[in-house]
Amino acid sequence: MTYDIAIIGAGPAGVSAAINAKILDKSFIWLAGSAESKKVSRAEKILNYPGLPDISGEELSAALKRHCDTLSISPTAAKVTGIYPSKTSFTILTGDEAPVARSVILCLGVESFKPVPGELDFIGRGVSYCATCDGFLYRGKTIAVLCTDKRLEHEISFLAGLASKVYLMPMYPGCEVKGDNIQIIHKYPVSFQGGMRLERVCFKDGEITVDGAFLLKESLPPASLISGLATTGDGHISVSRSCATNIPGVFAAGDCTGRPYQYAKAVGEGNVAAHSAVEYLAALDK
Amino acid sequence: MTYDIAIIGAGPAGVSAAINAKILDKSFIWLAGSAESKKVSRAEKILNYPGLPDISGEELSAALKRHCDTLSISPTAAKVTGIYPSKTSFTILTGDEAPVARSVILCLGVESFKPVPGELDFIGRGVSYCATCDGFLYRGKTIAVLCTDKRLEHEISFLAGLASKVYLMPMYPGCEVKGDNIQIIHKYPVSFQGGMRLERVCFKDGEITVDGAFLLKESLPPASLISGLATTGDGHISVSRSCATNIPGVFAAGDCTGRPYQYAKAVGEGNVAAHSAVEYLAALDK
Repeated sequence: MTYDIAIIGAGPAGVSAAINAKILDKSFIWLAGSAESKKVSRAEKILNYPGLPDISGEELSAALKRHCDTLSISPTAAKVTGIYPSKTSFTILTGDEAPVARSVILCLGVESFKPVPGELDFIGRGVSYCATCDGFLYRGKTIAVLCTDKRLEHEISFLAGLASKVYLMPMYPGCEVKGDNIQIIHKYPVSFQGGMRLERVCFKDGEITVDGAFLLKESLPPASLISGLATTGDGHISVSRSCATNIPGVFAAGDCTGRPYQYAKAVGEGNVAAHSAVEYLAALDK
Repeated sequence: MTYDIAIIGAGPAGVSAAINAKILDKSFIWLAGSAESKKVSRAEKILNYPGLPDISGEELSAALKRHCDTLSISPTAAKVTGIYPSKTSFTILTGDEAPVARSVILCLGVESFKPVPGELDFIGRGVSYCATCDGFLYRGKTIAVLCTDKRLEHEISFLAGLASKVYLMPMYPGCEVKGDNIQIIHKYPVSFQGGMRLERVCFKDGEITVDGAFLLKESLPPASLISGLATTGDGHISVSRSCATNIPGVFAAGDCTGRPYQYAKAVGEGNVAAHSAVEYLAALDK
């Protein structure tokens, strides 16, 4: 089956897009790295989400979840690793399945860790965001693994089972992964370097030689997901007032489109993006 | 006193802008034709305001009001009839006072009655939106009065006390204004015509000769409020992604900036406009 819309992300923008896709009676698939937005739940106090005064992030998360429940919709846990356009549809690559949709709404949030200089240049040439997709390419090789989230530790273990040597950079406290072939480095890279392929991960005070690097993050740099997606100078997705990106059929909403990083802005854009996607589909069907 | 921000309108966009102006600790004046948005209250069922599933318009209105109450903010009932820019501030004309603010956020909603062809051309030359402001100019003269809202009937009576003849076009059921010099016409004008000044109000099947015309509406065409404000072909206010209009210091949010006419979009833009106004003020203060 080809879905009308694929919604990527389950923060407030994704929730709003999904609510509207449902109400506007479109078929859609809703994918999210983790089934709900961690960022919302983490907020201590939200004073400016109109209609819900003075609530905690957890309460807003719960309210959004209840709203989805009343409409019988919920995101599917799946890490999207790539989106490939064909003539009139998009194939969404995940670890497991590859659903197809006629339009896409990106609600990716913002990556708290900026791309490392060189990172985007070596995508597909040594830099990977998906252990299960690309791990087997590095059997018996030396790899660097940068991980921003404890919940992704199983991917580290998976990679350590394949590679001969893993330089592990955990970007969170309390890393519990251990292994004879794992060397932990408590530094953040300053650049990725190499020729045709990635060869070196560089730090302020030295470098390591690797065959590849895995960046295990909760949210991916937008440009790494769809080839040719226009972004602003500071890494946000460029969108029009109607939340359209430069790629016909691809829309974006929420923090990934830029500041202010605000819940109200995110739900507003999720709403607009869903309406724009529906208009786009109507024009296709003419 | 000069306010940091003047917010015009008390629909969801105005509420969101006011909440954020308050939280961002700015001094602001909040003006609205009627103290709350009629349009929201009228909505029967709202399914897609994230976090408040399946509520009525009245319930959403009440929730927004409660939110404002927790922050001790509320709009002042005042019909804004014009906004005049000076070097670093804006004077807001109302029937009574003329507050001054360094920035303006327009949350005007959408006029349900489109401007009549010729209407905007004769602003200040026979076409007026404010009985108390311009009524005295028509003492002993013949005027047309188009009124879209029963709650504005006192303005009709005021005008009938000044003019020698009033052609009244009530655009609502149950008009109760009566007077020897009032002639009711149950038609909607097709155009306003004249030379240097308005001379004729034309209908499909005839015309009347007048010295002036008063258009008593709940919300005004944006271009009638601020001279030089850029609008789109269909009468919405042109804004950037940051809700900035073409006039520095003037921002706009909600239905007045275009479709989709949605509560979530409106609160999102109110939030963005407030943040943009605060950035604008910070730049001024540098």
